Amino acid sequence: MQTGVPLNEARNLQVRKLEISDKNKGFVELLQQLTVCDAISDKDFEIRFQELSSLGDDHVICVIEDTSLGKIIATGSVFIEKKFIRNCGKVGHIEDVVVDRDSRGMQLGKKVLSFLADHARSVGCYKAILDCINENKAFYEKCGFKQKEIQMVKYFI
Amino acid sequence: MQTGVPLNEARNLQVRKLEISDKNKGFVELLQQLTVCDAISDKDFEIRFQELSSLGDDHVICVIEDTSLGKIIATGSVFIEKKFIRNCGKVGHIEDVVVDRDSRGMQLGKKVLSFLADHARSVGCYKAILDCINENKAFYEKCGFKQKEIQMVKYFI
Repeated sequence: MQTGVPLNEARNLQVRKLEISDKNKGFVELLQQLTVCDAISDKDFEIRFQELSSLGDDHVICVIEDTSLGKIIATGSVFIEKKFIRNCGKVGHIEDVVVDRDSRGMQLGKKVLSFLADHARSVGCYKAILDCINENKAFYEKCGFKQKEIQMVKYFI
Repeated sequence: MQTGVPLNEARNLQVRKLEISDKNKGFVELLQQLTVCDAISDKDFEIRFQELSSLGDDHVICVIEDTSLGKIIATGSVFIEKKFIRNCGKVGHIEDVVVDRDSRGMQLGKKVLSFLADHARSVGCYKAILDCINENKAFYEKCGFKQKEIQMVKYFI
């Protein structure tokens, strides 16, 4: 009997970049837990995947796969903005972080954030930023983030 | 005597995309009013300008030039993030908006915001977002934006 083994040790988890085959591992269904995300055709998925892949290190999507289930259970993305300010500095923008509702409490969100922030730092960003609802502030603080500004939005549709 | 003529009508203003020659028209000095931005060498400026130009419509910097002075007096940028959510939707991220301190009160910030938001909409974004300090909230509300989330940041240097 396995006692005292953390759940995330007992499962076979792989933290890595998104692969095109992840569409068949529940990647889109996971995003649907985050916000509006209708079914995406294989063709549309491939087109968007290739567009993002062509950006190389400037756009990275992290996933965590439970390899025993063949299922994507957490994800988040970061894209790198190149600026003139801060001595032609770069900023990592973290977006679309979500953990499968059946796999919460295992620090998977923190793992995704670490992966994305490490990537941003490794390519020379001076900071990483993200926007979140107030209810998620404590989580991001545990990941080393601090509240700074407010987010403003204008919808077109 | 020119009475009743708004200041921005009396001056020759051109709203357009950044050109490489704008470095010699005070573009960097304008950014220095926004935040940390040391002098940039011509070579570094050209490299960053070309990197951003290669992104085409996915990264646009708007400037307003006072053509009678040959001086850039307002700027702002928008880059287009491609997502899987929202049916492979796109979001415009507006950054680095600043109006020269001697040219404020002429609605130049609003003009820059319109240019950037119109661009985001024209390339199919479902929304445009930006982060700002609380003191600038009222300005962005006048430009049609609403407060939504909070911004979190992690600095690497």
